[in-house]
Amino acid sequence: MQHYPPSVIQVIRQLATLPGIGPKTAERLALHLLKASGDEVRGLAQSILALKANVRLCSRCFALSESSLCPVCRDPARDTGLICVVERPADMMAVEAASGFQGVYHILQGVLSPMDGIGPEDIRIRELILRIRTEEVREVILATGTAVEGEATAAYLAEQLSGLPIRVTRIASGIPMGGDLKYIDQVTLKRALESRRHVP
Amino acid sequence: MQHYPPSVIQVIRQLATLPGIGPKTAERLALHLLKASGDEVRGLAQSILALKANVRLCSRCFALSESSLCPVCRDPARDTGLICVVERPADMMAVEAASGFQGVYHILQGVLSPMDGIGPEDIRIRELILRIRTEEVREVILATGTAVEGEATAAYLAEQLSGLPIRVTRIASGIPMGGDLKYIDQVTLKRALESRRHVP
Ligand SMILES: [Zn+2]
Ligand SMILES: [Zn+2]
Repeated sequence: MQHYPPSVIQVIRQLATLPGIGPKTAERLALHLLKASGDEVRGLAQSILALKANVRLCSRCFALSESSLCPVCRDPARDTGLICVVERPADMMAVEAASGFQGVYHILQGVLSPMDGIGPEDIRIRELILRIRTEEVREVILATGTAVEGEATAAYLAEQLSGLPIRVTRIASGIPMGGDLKYIDQVTLKRALESRRHVP
Repeated sequence: MQHYPPSVIQVIRQLATLPGIGPKTAERLALHLLKASGDEVRGLAQSILALKANVRLCSRCFALSESSLCPVCRDPARDTGLICVVERPADMMAVEAASGFQGVYHILQGVLSPMDGIGPEDIRIRELILRIRTEEVREVILATGTAVEGEATAAYLAEQLSGLPIRVTRIASGIPMGGDLKYIDQVTLKRALESRRHVP
């Protein structure tokens, strides 16, 4: 690899820092980009820059959005009294793709993880409580994952929300333990949402 | 995926056109880029653009280069009487990495492949013959791969070069049949170069 021209080495190094891209894949991608048309390569570079420039977090639910409010929050047909709380944007996409859910979301942007030094102040819990206090919320579905951190986060939230005049439910198991919402098939995910249970 | 903001969908689509990147990997990469620092993302985009802008083919050997002549062709210590003919830039890098080779290269930029409509005029064969006629070449090592196309290309070249006053050799077998030079370990590749044989 040290024998490639500097510009090629630079791209290989940059690509190899991405998750799941090893040095061999990075080399193959760099050589592919060299052979690709100028338009194709400029298109890729520009779309990567546009991503950073255009995408922010929805000011209400913290979903990925290109405007202050995301499309779900702006949709008058959605039931704003029903909030589905998920860990990350990809989890929200998984629930949306499973369809059938007509409420809105709250994306925590993480999970509680004492091992990594991530506590309640580091994820969007305060903002969730503020939403519940200021919006007309009827039910909060805790749809964090069933891995240790997701379960702990759900338990913490259930406790924090227990004093509030709302129904708090947990997404039904049926999702395999240790599972990550975004890799679950749509039917299972839809069923699990439908058979959500009240947190005692 | 259709629920992501347009800029995210655009990046996922662009990334998914790259070889070896499926839709799930593209989604994970796009979400990674969203979380990455602005500097990191700009660095990636700029290095991709610089790749196209800076890299061309060496005017003598068709290696990847940032100047008219590549570093190997410019190196006065290399033996210009010994040309190693390979299919692609990655093969040249593999030979360089195996070290021990002190000659120069000729990168065909492809192999003969009648099935894909690639004939002798579509790869850099004419330029190789011109080099042999105009430079002081003593030996040409045919180091195309041992897959069908590489073997056919070596056979075709051996025939074309048979009338010229040079030694024509084929990289030694020892490389597994059907193998691709760039995936061979360095020791095997070095040995195979050293035990190259004269083409009868
Ligand atoms: Zn929103
Ligand atoms: Zn050169």
